Amino acid sequence: MSSPNILSGKDQELDHMRHSCAHILAQAVLDMFPEAKLAIGPTTDDGFYYDFDLPRTLIPEDLDILQEKMEQIAKDKQSFKRVDGDIDKAIDFYKKAGQPFKVEILEDLKKEGENNITFYENLDAEQNVKFVDLCKGGHVEDTSKSGAFKLHKIAGAYWRGDENKPMLQRIYGLCFKDKKALKVHMQMLEEAKKRDHRKLGKELELFDFNEHVGPGLPLWLPNGAVLVEELEKLAKEEEFKDGYERLRTPHITKGKLYEMSGHLDHYKDSMYAPMKTDGEDYYLKPMNCPHHHMCFKSNPKSYRDLPVRFAEYGTCYRYEDSGALFGLMRVRSLQMNDAHIYCTEDQFLDEFIKVTKMYLRYFELFGIEKYVMRLSLHSKEGLGKKYLNEPELWGKTEEMVRNAMKKAGVEYIEVEDEAAFYGPKIDIEVWSAIGREFTLATNQVDFGVPAKMGLAYTDENGQEQVPLCIHRAPLSTHERFIGFLIEHYAGAFPTWLAPVQVRVLPVSDKFLDYATELAEKMRGEFVRVEVDDSKEGLGKKIRNAELKKIPYMLVVGEKEVADNKVAARNYKTKKQVVVDKDVFIDKVLDEIKKRSSTPFVESM
Amino acid sequence: MSSPNILSGKDQELDHMRHSCAHILAQAVLDMFPEAKLAIGPTTDDGFYYDFDLPRTLIPEDLDILQEKMEQIAKDKQSFKRVDGDIDKAIDFYKKAGQPFKVEILEDLKKEGENNITFYENLDAEQNVKFVDLCKGGHVEDTSKSGAFKLHKIAGAYWRGDENKPMLQRIYGLCFKDKKALKVHMQMLEEAKKRDHRKLGKELELFDFNEHVGPGLPLWLPNGAVLVEELEKLAKEEEFKDGYERLRTPHITKGKLYEMSGHLDHYKDSMYAPMKTDGEDYYLKPMNCPHHHMCFKSNPKSYRDLPVRFAEYGTCYRYEDSGALFGLMRVRSLQMNDAHIYCTEDQFLDEFIKVTKMYLRYFELFGIEKYVMRLSLHSKEGLGKKYLNEPELWGKTEEMVRNAMKKAGVEYIEVEDEAAFYGPKIDIEVWSAIGREFTLATNQVDFGVPAKMGLAYTDENGQEQVPLCIHRAPLSTHERFIGFLIEHYAGAFPTWLAPVQVRVLPVSDKFLDYATELAEKMRGEFVRVEVDDSKEGLGKKIRNAELKKIPYMLVVGEKEVADNKVAARNYKTKKQVVVDKDVFIDKVLDEIKKRSSTPFVESM
Repeated sequence: MSSPNILSGKDQELDHMRHSCAHILAQAVLDMFPEAKLAIGPTTDDGFYYDFDLPRTLIPEDLDILQEKMEQIAKDKQSFKRVDGDIDKAIDFYKKAGQPFKVEILEDLKKEGENNITFYENLDAEQNVKFVDLCKGGHVEDTSKSGAFKLHKIAGAYWRGDENKPMLQRIYGLCFKDKKALKVHMQMLEEAKKRDHRKLGKELELFDFNEHVGPGLPLWLPNGAVLVEELEKLAKEEEFKDGYERLRTPHITKGKLYEMSGHLDHYKDSMYAPMKTDGEDYYLKPMNCPHHHMCFKSNPKSYRDLPVRFAEYGTCYRYEDSGALFGLMRVRSLQMNDAHIYCTEDQFLDEFIKVTKMYLRYFELFGIEKYVMRLSLHSKEGLGKKYLNEPELWGKTEEMVRNAMKKAGVEYIEVEDEAAFYGPKIDIEVWSAIGREFTLATNQVDFGVPAKMGLAYTDENGQEQVPLCIHRAPLSTHERFIGFLIEHYAGAFPTWLAPVQVRVLPVSDKFLDYATELAEKMRGEFVRVEVDDSKEGLGKKIRNAELKKIPYMLVVGEKEVADNKVAARNYKTKKQVVVDKDVFIDKVLDEIKKRSSTPFVESM
Repeated sequence: MSSPNILSGKDQELDHMRHSCAHILAQAVLDMFPEAKLAIGPTTDDGFYYDFDLPRTLIPEDLDILQEKMEQIAKDKQSFKRVDGDIDKAIDFYKKAGQPFKVEILEDLKKEGENNITFYENLDAEQNVKFVDLCKGGHVEDTSKSGAFKLHKIAGAYWRGDENKPMLQRIYGLCFKDKKALKVHMQMLEEAKKRDHRKLGKELELFDFNEHVGPGLPLWLPNGAVLVEELEKLAKEEEFKDGYERLRTPHITKGKLYEMSGHLDHYKDSMYAPMKTDGEDYYLKPMNCPHHHMCFKSNPKSYRDLPVRFAEYGTCYRYEDSGALFGLMRVRSLQMNDAHIYCTEDQFLDEFIKVTKMYLRYFELFGIEKYVMRLSLHSKEGLGKKYLNEPELWGKTEEMVRNAMKKAGVEYIEVEDEAAFYGPKIDIEVWSAIGREFTLATNQVDFGVPAKMGLAYTDENGQEQVPLCIHRAPLSTHERFIGFLIEHYAGAFPTWLAPVQVRVLPVSDKFLDYATELAEKMRGEFVRVEVDDSKEGLGKKIRNAELKKIPYMLVVGEKEVADNKVAARNYKTKKQVVVDKDVFIDKVLDEIKKRSSTPFVESM
């Protein structure tokens, strides 16, 4: 496995380019629609956008016109000039300019006590002001230095994301340092479209959403359920090897549990509404931890019992605004590869390293070559607000995690002010095969909640101590991880994961018995195998199997039956080999058992 | 496997004995407490009870006094005499006798239009009336023929089961044809107490209930989760072999789905209260079927796709009155070994036989030697009320099921008026190893709901047809089935199911390395193994392992280490063998893989 590719925080130069592009876009839009009202224009992960109130709805062709105007502005080499000003004068300026959104922004800033603001002006060679925008900066020197950009998408967006406010038009642009980087990214987006998990999910019949069941609640169809089950099998095996024990806990609980854990104080907006039962409020669980903590408490624990490692692939329910839902990536029911490790401070290092190594094993198995581990720390300012007010414990725990990452030999970056409420965490970002970034998993240290929920163990001296708790979910949720895998593999899953692993294609009905017998034999070994007994010709049968991206097609005709062989054709490598049928079965069973991503035909 | 023991419906003679005992008990109570108010006194599965309003709370010693009085009444050979009477006179009689519960019963009967009622009188040798009760009969000839009886329990019970009505005292009695049968039953009850799943569940740390989570919502602790996981693995393998596909569906849905399925009309009282989300009512699922039906509808089906067999070990939530909850046997969250088979009429016979054979395979695996299959039919009177008003379809489907049972060669009994709303069903009752009866599973034919929910397939002629649906759950719910298994095995599970399969007991710390290495090797093969590294002596270590009913203890000391052997001691057979450690591993892996209930040491 190649060493991880570490991101060096934010790339300031690129950020300035993208920010400058937003200004150039706004200038172009004002040129095209002088009556346009400007809202805001921030940067994104791959470029920028700007929201406008326009006299008419944009059509895709408008983007070409605007792109051309932007390129002209870039050629003009307009300089960016910072201007500091008084907020009242600025409000006055924008009122006169007929820019109500800017006025609203400024008036809000004023309410918050802000007196001075900054503008950025674009000046042409004659020092004429071509455009001005309320802006903190920074920017590139002049418009010609704003990188390689490309407008690519129009969308609707409510002013301030509030559906009671006006609907604006958002123009998205891509921006990279040079044309080559832009091209690579555009190819990636093109490829991502082909690999879109919603599109492939439908074509491969992996999952479905049903209007009568509700948005954000995926139904895993048989093919998708195979992925779910195989991932669970994998997790269970890996967790067994690492000494985890499993739990099964209900999906609901009395509100009392979430009063104790603090969820009702901090997390209520993300929870489903309560169900009134026996005069009490019952809630769907948004997380598994409080249930696991109750299992920990089910009998007294001594230091000899620790570490206790409780794992459960538990389904949680979180309320997300219906507008925020997106395929499998943003859902309301999520089944998490969850576990909680209760340990002493002395055990922490080993446990944390063990968890980190589990992550790395999974990355290797799934061919994830690029990833980054971000150690998210607290901030002093947030103590007592976003973070538990325990400065010493924060310092100590963060140092423990740092130590563990170093001992595990894993590169990581540190990020201030992104910790969990109850302790530092590692966020793991991974890149799919086509280079798209996914935030999949976290690994958190909790020094707060165990005490809050009264968890304890008796130490060597008979004293009660509170254990540390590590929350971890290397395989994320089924929803998000399978969404990732669909793109990563473009739906062509390795044999062990593939919903259908083998399809037998008899050349004609004459060979159906041989095909069926062969399939039955494999099914007896738990291979997921089908026989194509349709009336189609072989060519069509092959195309149909390829459409479903089935790893192995076994063509059986006159010659194969006579020799007791199969002509095995692999989807990924397109390689075909003719082998004894028992040899094929042995080889494919071995490939499945090893969870290999290399088809056995490769080495034949 | 021995052939099933078929119950010949109700045993009338025994029923008369038990019914007579209830009268004898009431007579005895009136003798002891002349001011006693009599409520009702029906028969039970193993005897009878009678509810009384008494001047004081009974103590266990009272049962001895009453037992003696009852035996005296039996010796008296009082005859039972039927008396027909007018209802108004009867009301008058009971008013004068100061028996308000009897008056209430009679007044209700009168409201329902009843004019004539029957009494039974007990007459002594001189034809004096010793006791009289409102009763439909029948009875034995005289009190000496009322079998072998034994009072055994006092409990509280609300009049008419209504908590707003007076609390009465219920006296339970056992009654069998002779003393031997009574003794066998009492021994069984004694054994059942030892095997009580709540008691063993606690001792073996299988599950827990937590007040903050809520009643009826079991938390499966690691040992119990092993049982859950092993049963699921078994079901998945068996279902894979029989051509099932798996689904995963959410635990909630919009109410719309249950309007379509009819659950909101017929089943609302057993459902949890709704959660208001996006202005709509969402419900926890009380059953998996409607979700599965939506999966069936996710894409068009042709006759070539049928039969479709959808399986899911889905967790359902049902609201049960908190007073009705009982350990794992009556819970609010239940995870069901569910599946729905969608098929044509022509396919029905084969599918139904296949399902029945799956039941039989499970009975054999779990050593269930006594069971009965009850074919529950509709009743003409219930058509359009309890049952879909489709008399022809009822006749046809019932005949199809009868046919299938005969073809499968399974003995069964027929019971009128116990079908499901949408079709006939097979209720399967099984007896545990100590002879206690459990209703575990049903197998239902549904010719109603698929049409109601718009399920369809295209037949050979391009016409839309509605499939039949078989609902089946051979392994019942985890909760009920594991509750049954705990009693059935007395907590000493066969090796494949046992939470801990092997415990290694080093004679002293000197042999700890050998023990650990051995355990690690087994763990690598997914054996659930522990090392007892405590400071206890060997005797105590053995006792501790026996308390946990662990199938294999491996004692390792000087000699074993020197010879690379283990002294393997089996819990069930108490047999001990000394074998090479690799031989032990091979043997135990084989025993687990075969899911054998015979410890391998038996044949050594």
